[in-house]
Amino acid sequence: MIPLLEPIRSDLEQVKRLLHATLAEIGEPLGSELSETVNGGKCIRPALVILVGHLFSAPAVSFHKLATVVEVLHTASLIHDDLVDNAALRRGRETLHTSWSTGVTVLVGDALLAQAAALLAELNRPQILRVFADALRAMVAGEIEQLLTAGKAQCSREGYYRRIEAKTAALCAAAMEMASILAEADEVQIAALRRFGWELGIAFQIVDDVLDLIGDEAQLGKPAGSDLRQGLVTLPTICYLEQAKSSAVVDAVLAGQGDEKLMRTAIETICASGAVDAALEEARSHVWQGQEALILLPDGGPRQALGALIEYAVERKY
Amino acid sequence: MIPLLEPIRSDLEQVKRLLHATLAEIGEPLGSELSETVNGGKCIRPALVILVGHLFSAPAVSFHKLATVVEVLHTASLIHDDLVDNAALRRGRETLHTSWSTGVTVLVGDALLAQAAALLAELNRPQILRVFADALRAMVAGEIEQLLTAGKAQCSREGYYRRIEAKTAALCAAAMEMASILAEADEVQIAALRRFGWELGIAFQIVDDVLDLIGDEAQLGKPAGSDLRQGLVTLPTICYLEQAKSSAVVDAVLAGQGDEKLMRTAIETICASGAVDAALEEARSHVWQGQEALILLPDGGPRQALGALIEYAVERKY
Repeated sequence: MIPLLEPIRSDLEQVKRLLHATLAEIGEPLGSELSETVNGGKCIRPALVILVGHLFSAPAVSFHKLATVVEVLHTASLIHDDLVDNAALRRGRETLHTSWSTGVTVLVGDALLAQAAALLAELNRPQILRVFADALRAMVAGEIEQLLTAGKAQCSREGYYRRIEAKTAALCAAAMEMASILAEADEVQIAALRRFGWELGIAFQIVDDVLDLIGDEAQLGKPAGSDLRQGLVTLPTICYLEQAKSSAVVDAVLAGQGDEKLMRTAIETICASGAVDAALEEARSHVWQGQEALILLPDGGPRQALGALIEYAVERKY
Repeated sequence: MIPLLEPIRSDLEQVKRLLHATLAEIGEPLGSELSETVNGGKCIRPALVILVGHLFSAPAVSFHKLATVVEVLHTASLIHDDLVDNAALRRGRETLHTSWSTGVTVLVGDALLAQAAALLAELNRPQILRVFADALRAMVAGEIEQLLTAGKAQCSREGYYRRIEAKTAALCAAAMEMASILAEADEVQIAALRRFGWELGIAFQIVDDVLDLIGDEAQLGKPAGSDLRQGLVTLPTICYLEQAKSSAVVDAVLAGQGDEKLMRTAIETICASGAVDAALEEARSHVWQGQEALILLPDGGPRQALGALIEYAVERKY
C-alpha cells in the first residue's frame, strides 16, 4: 500500500476482504490466482471511493461494497484486455491467459462482471448502475476502437486522449461519481468529484505511459518501452514527433522497421529530446485541474488526502 | 417468427427495434452482423417476458426494455460461448469469432453486457438487477465447470442437468422472474412463473439435444450429431448408456476412437434404441410440470400462450 493511504488502511483492508471473498466465488484454483494478482495493485480506485465516503462522513459499509465493485470491474477489464492485447505480464506476474485457455480467461472476466453486478444490486441504487454501465460501455468502446484502428496512424493527440480516457479516466471518473451519489452529494459536488476522478485518471495514465518509456523494468513488472515495441504511440512520443525537426529513427521504429538496437536508439532519442518533460508537464496541468475541482468540496483530512493522491499520480516512480 | 407468437407480433417488433438500436451502438460493421445473427433466433425469451406483461395487463414499454435486456444478455452469452467452445456455426450463420479476432469477439460480448446493464438501469428496479446478476453468474459458472471437467466423464444425469440448467434454464427462469417482478406479481406468482421458465428451459434444451442427434442438418444450421462429435454427452446418450446391455460402439466413440463410419453407427445405434423416445418423454414431464405451475396464474389468452409455448418446446422439429 502506498504510504499516503495509511489513514484509510482499515477501510482498504475491509475492501480487500470483500474482494477476496468475491474472487473466491469463482472457485479454486482460479480464485487464489486472481487474489494474488489483485494484491499487486495500488488500490487507487478503491481509495477514491473510500475517501469520498469520508469526505461526507457517510456510513462505511456501503462504500466498502462500492469500492469492491470498482476493483472487481477493473480486474475484469484487465483480464479481458490482457487477453485482447496478448500481454504476457501484469504487475510482474504472468497474466491469466498465459496459464489458462482463452475460454477460461473469457469466462473468468464474465464471472467478475456478474459479481460486480450482484454487489451493485445490494447497493439498491439504479442511478449508480447507470454510471457503472456507462463506464463499462466507454471502456469497451475504447478498446474496440483501438483494435479496429490498429495498424493505422494512432499518432494524434486527440486519439491518444480518447484512448486513455477509455482505458483509465472513465473508470476513475465513474468511481468518484458513484461514490458521491452514494454519499448523497449535491449535483455540483458530484460533477466536481467526477471531474477530479477524470483528471486523476488522465494524469495517472500519462505518467504510466512516461514510466513505460523511462521506468525501471523490475519496478514496472514489464519490459521498458513495451508500448513503443507494440507500435503504441503515447504522449511522450507524440510530444517528440510534434517538436522534432527530423524523426527518421522514431518513424522507422513506428513503421515496424529495424532491430533491437534501433529500438533502443529511438527510446533514447525520445528521452533526450525534452518530450518526457513536456508530457509530465501536461500530466501536471491535469493534476492542477483536479485540485481546482476539489475547492468546491468540504475541507479537511479526506479532501487533503484526495489532493495528495492526485499529486502521487505524477510524483511516483513506478 | 413461430406462428403461436402471432398475437404478440407487434410487441416483438418493438423489442426487435430496441434490440437493433442496442446492437447498432457497437458501431459498424459489427452492429449489422450482430443484427443478422439475432434475426435468426426464435424469440422465445423475449416472448416469455412480453407474455408475463400481458398476463398482468402491465404497461408495455418497460416490458419491451426488459425483453431486450434478456435477448442482449442471451446474445452476449452466445458470442462468448461460441468462442469458448470454438463453434463454427450458429443459426446457420458463421459465428462472430470465425470472421473476427478473439479480441473483437471478447469485447463485443462485453459491450453487450454493458448495454444490458444500461437498459436495466432505466428500469429502476434493483431487485431485477439481482436476478439478472444471479443468472449471469449461474450461466458463467456452468460454462467454467464444463471447461474444467472437460475430458473427464460427463456422463452422469446429474451433471447433464447441471449443465443444461446453466446453459438454458437459468436465463429462462430469470426472464420469467424479472418480468413478474416488473409486473408487481406477488411472491407465490413470482415463484410459479420462475418455475415455469425453468421447466421450459430444461424441456427446450433436452429437445435441442435430441434434435442435435436426429435433426435435419439444413434446418438445424449445424452438422447433425455435433454434440457427440465433440464428446459432449447429452440426455439421449445418457438414456442409451443406462439401458444398453452392450455399448461398445458408443463407448469407443466417446473415448475418441474410430472414424466417421463408427460415428454414424453410434448415432444410429442410439436412435434405434428407444433412448430418443425416453429423452423426449423426460422433456414432456418437464412440460407438464411447467403447465402445472401456470395453474396459479390468472386464466386467459396470455396464460394459454405460455402453455402453448412450452408445448412448442417439445413439438418443434428444429
